[in-house]
Amino acid sequence: MLAEGPAIILVEPQLGENIGMVARAMANFGLGELRLVSPRDGWPNEKARAAASRADHVIDAAVMFEDTASAIADLNFVYATTARPRDNFKPVRGPVEAAAELRSRFAAGQKTGILFGRERWGLTNEEVALADEIVTFPVNPAFASLNIAQAVLLMSYEWMKPGDQAVRPAESRSEPAAKQHIESLVAYLDRVLDERGYFRTEDKKPKMIENLRALVTRPGFTVEELAVLRGVLTSLEKFSPKKPRGSGAPDAG
Amino acid sequence: MLAEGPAIILVEPQLGENIGMVARAMANFGLGELRLVSPRDGWPNEKARAAASRADHVIDAAVMFEDTASAIADLNFVYATTARPRDNFKPVRGPVEAAAELRSRFAAGQKTGILFGRERWGLTNEEVALADEIVTFPVNPAFASLNIAQAVLLMSYEWMKPGDQAVRPAESRSEPAAKQHIESLVAYLDRVLDERGYFRTEDKKPKMIENLRALVTRPGFTVEELAVLRGVLTSLEKFSPKKPRGSGAPDAG
Repeated sequence: MLAEGPAIILVEPQLGENIGMVARAMANFGLGELRLVSPRDGWPNEKARAAASRADHVIDAAVMFEDTASAIADLNFVYATTARPRDNFKPVRGPVEAAAELRSRFAAGQKTGILFGRERWGLTNEEVALADEIVTFPVNPAFASLNIAQAVLLMSYEWMKPGDQAVRPAESRSEPAAKQHIESLVAYLDRVLDERGYFRTEDKKPKMIENLRALVTRPGFTVEELAVLRGVLTSLEKFSPKKPRGSGAPDAG
Repeated sequence: MLAEGPAIILVEPQLGENIGMVARAMANFGLGELRLVSPRDGWPNEKARAAASRADHVIDAAVMFEDTASAIADLNFVYATTARPRDNFKPVRGPVEAAAELRSRFAAGQKTGILFGRERWGLTNEEVALADEIVTFPVNPAFASLNIAQAVLLMSYEWMKPGDQAVRPAESRSEPAAKQHIESLVAYLDRVLDERGYFRTEDKKPKMIENLRALVTRPGFTVEELAVLRGVLTSLEKFSPKKPRGSGAPDAG
């Protein structure tokens, strides 16, 4: 069934019919890995199976997750699909560019995924912040109304499309750390910065955390680079000029 | 609404929902001319309007025909969409090629159209014979099951794509900070980490500084991103859980 390629991740999909149509779109273009974050009507869902039109292998293999972060924890590179540009400094690609990027990373052995938001209001800013880049569709500005199955269809089609979109020669690009490493660092920053009054007021904190996540996500840091960064932060956290590393007990703060 | 381009012709469509999804797909990519050959459930069709998701301008302008020949009588050039190759010696194109051909003819002032068959069994050989060329989709041979709304979506998308690319604004990638900003950060790290015993021994220090410089250079951070990073580091340097920001004098270390 050629079920290789990026994981398709639906965040809180509402209608089983849409999930089924997504599975059908994926199967048509050789994709097989469907991940669902808290589908509204639970799982399994007979409406999804009916709408999948015999793409049972995709429906049967679908995996459930509690939240978006855990759904992408093992992935190296993730696109978020959005209908409108967002003010968050992430690179914005069209489907052709995005598919080329995904193929290139697939050829290099990386695990990739594409996030699709809720039927009514898409992805939250926090969910978009989890991704590396944004993909948006070149729709008519006077009528922009793609549903999630249509959006999945276009990305799946671009993924499989042959011809001038041949896989680019493997770049000697380093492999970005899996998302769980990013989340671990963000959780660490949340803790040590909160203790130090970095976030000023509680209402400012969510946006500040989002900016920090964007900062450490955007470079596509490798596991090794994240380890160096973590070492720098820990040195600042644990030690001080009066009590440097190796002088005995670390500064209790 | 940018309603220019090839006519979309549905031959004996059965489900109103599919007609509505076709209209929605067309509207997303700036197409507006829908022709229906003997829709099974008659016309108008409220299920079609509901599924069109506000693409009322396409639904309202749809025109009925008795048969396929009369539906394409005024057109200069017509594609037939088929799921499988047919033994009829017509040129077979992919969606990219077909869209290029349609644009070229549109630019020359020709009227064009694309025929889509019935949900269950497509177009008859006689209907295919009415067309100039065939367009088929690069689907997974092990699971070829595009519905008509999906097929219309892909052709509409390919029709609009280049126009959008032409008007796409310049790459919104942010500008990497000048090297002096990187050097300032490296000098800062050198100082605050040296004070904390990070470099262990003097002979290790040059290589470790080099690694830190590589870490902050590689992402191409913007000035704004570097400021956020600097703020994080300063918070760890100046404050502690016992003496958080805003609690009076910073920790002297």
